[in-house]
Amino acid sequence: MGLEFKIEATDGAARRGVLETARGSILTPAFMPVGTAATVKAMLPQSVQETGADVLLCNTYHLMLRPGAERINDLGGLHKFMNWSGPILTDSGGFQVMSLSNLRTVTESGVTFRSHIDGSAHELTPARCMEIQQMLGSDITMVLDECTAFPATVDEFERSMELSLRWAAACKNEYTPSDGKGLLGIVQGGIDATLRERSAKGLIEIGFDGYAIGGLAVGEDQSQMFETISGTVPFLPKDQPRYLMGVGKPDDIVGAVRRGIDMFDCVLPTRSGRTGQAFTERGTVNIRNARHADDPRPLQENCSCPACTDYSRAYLHHLVKSKEILGATLMTWHNLHYYQTLMAGLRQAISAAKLDEFCEIFDENQKLGNIPAQ
Amino acid sequence: MGLEFKIEATDGAARRGVLETARGSILTPAFMPVGTAATVKAMLPQSVQETGADVLLCNTYHLMLRPGAERINDLGGLHKFMNWSGPILTDSGGFQVMSLSNLRTVTESGVTFRSHIDGSAHELTPARCMEIQQMLGSDITMVLDECTAFPATVDEFERSMELSLRWAAACKNEYTPSDGKGLLGIVQGGIDATLRERSAKGLIEIGFDGYAIGGLAVGEDQSQMFETISGTVPFLPKDQPRYLMGVGKPDDIVGAVRRGIDMFDCVLPTRSGRTGQAFTERGTVNIRNARHADDPRPLQENCSCPACTDYSRAYLHHLVKSKEILGATLMTWHNLHYYQTLMAGLRQAISAAKLDEFCEIFDENQKLGNIPAQ
Repeated sequence: MGLEFKIEATDGAARRGVLETARGSILTPAFMPVGTAATVKAMLPQSVQETGADVLLCNTYHLMLRPGAERINDLGGLHKFMNWSGPILTDSGGFQVMSLSNLRTVTESGVTFRSHIDGSAHELTPARCMEIQQMLGSDITMVLDECTAFPATVDEFERSMELSLRWAAACKNEYTPSDGKGLLGIVQGGIDATLRERSAKGLIEIGFDGYAIGGLAVGEDQSQMFETISGTVPFLPKDQPRYLMGVGKPDDIVGAVRRGIDMFDCVLPTRSGRTGQAFTERGTVNIRNARHADDPRPLQENCSCPACTDYSRAYLHHLVKSKEILGATLMTWHNLHYYQTLMAGLRQAISAAKLDEFCEIFDENQKLGNIPAQ
Repeated sequence: MGLEFKIEATDGAARRGVLETARGSILTPAFMPVGTAATVKAMLPQSVQETGADVLLCNTYHLMLRPGAERINDLGGLHKFMNWSGPILTDSGGFQVMSLSNLRTVTESGVTFRSHIDGSAHELTPARCMEIQQMLGSDITMVLDECTAFPATVDEFERSMELSLRWAAACKNEYTPSDGKGLLGIVQGGIDATLRERSAKGLIEIGFDGYAIGGLAVGEDQSQMFETISGTVPFLPKDQPRYLMGVGKPDDIVGAVRRGIDMFDCVLPTRSGRTGQAFTERGTVNIRNARHADDPRPLQENCSCPACTDYSRAYLHHLVKSKEILGATLMTWHNLHYYQTLMAGLRQAISAAKLDEFCEIFDENQKLGNIPAQ
């Protein structure tokens, strides 16, 4: 029952592993593109797969509101609905309830809120959260947690972390285990090391198929985030996957992998793609900048994605300036390809025990900045 | 020099032919998807090609304003810019000057106007129109014409048609012929049969590689359009391609093919796709309608496009209601596939001398209307 996680190589705190699910293997460290409303925005699922993605993250909050979990269940589940046959991780909805919904009220039993789409009333309890993710057909289910606002006092972090622990226990009770699927706990506690330790130990006592670190990438700076990861990882089981939620920029991911994280998700490559920002080996490129209007060169010279092999910066600039849909598609494609190539590089470096060297080259290239204008 | 057109079969007034260009063959009757701003909106060029499109239409007006004809020329031409290796027909810009630009002034020498994008001043003369299309690298170039407003008096139609004839002669003088590329004249004259005849004869005297019928699909009803086609076609050379500009709905195309038209372009399949309207064998389907929210069936049962083979009406409904980019892509894909399948069916029917039978079945199916709700 549950998920099988094999660690195949380590380099310092970093690990290269394989998470086996009923719908396929996930090579770790892994980046999960975000398919918010049952679509990775602007992309066909087979194109997402071609970038090297093994697994998607979909948002329970969005899907429960539209088109509705019962409807997706009736239609045969999320995989069939969105034409993605690989594993899907669904979040608990807790984060979006806090960031998107209206009139939310948190009580011991759960959270009630109004939809940001049509104002309709909804409730997420641990039991309902498990039911929804089950109806979606999730391969990796997340417990309901309260994502504490940042910054907050230690008392607030503590109250919130304790509530999340009780909800985690309730989720575990409600969750029906099955082969090749799993339930992950979420460590909370803000940037307080003691609270993070207590949260981790509390979750391990309940017992999960893996452990996420939540409540980061919410406004703290990178050094606080890295410190919190380094302070939390030692309390997590060595033989189970560790997932850093909602992170992040390429250098966030590299730093977190070095600190022992196995899984990531983030809207950055997709969202930035739609606004004209590309991630490249030499840092970010804003394709809207007029300097690209006549540039026949690709976004990134040695990149094998369709945006780079078939199109110039000048064309991408034209598409994005003209608000053409193809601009969003090609920029997103490149960014997802960049992220997956970065993950493959990290995995290879860990296997070869050359992670320090890889990270040094990564940093040097990032610092080079965009190629000079012609 | 110029374009080679071979007619391989006829059925009544309808013809099945091949228009040979330097960049590939165009099977006729042909439908040209519209790639307004150097992109068929929401589609990758290889996906457009997979639908069966041999040739694209791109808009001179849009491209001269943004990114600019000189820029595209410097970047190696439109084909390289937009990654389309097949033939491209460019229009003259005249139609969009009338429908989109501001402060336009038509004189004997051409038309001056202000860009709808940034208000900048521009001029289109016959010479400039030929120069722009040459810089774009157009395979099939259209003469500059004045698209007369509809309705108009016979005097207005006549004055405008005569001006277009003089511009056509000037374009012919400015155009540099080359092998596998061609220049097409445009018959004007509104819905007046005498003017259309005079326009056709005037153009033939100048001599072009093919003849378009312009100034239709501008507000006249279908019977007026068909009457004008039937009244014009007899005056056009039998051995050269005939192109009906800006048309149309599937039944417009079927009716025009029966009247001897070889080429079409229209924004309907792409524009409708982005607003949630699908063209199917059983007429149009508005996927936004709530009746589709739970429907597991494809848009069209026997359709082999990705939108129909991989996705349900319920999913397409969800995407379009959620304003997801993938919704625009899949709906456009289906519509372009539907149009190309229709053209392939027409070509096959002409070859088999069974066009009447084909049209009868087409009409019957269209009248059936959308499949009943489940």
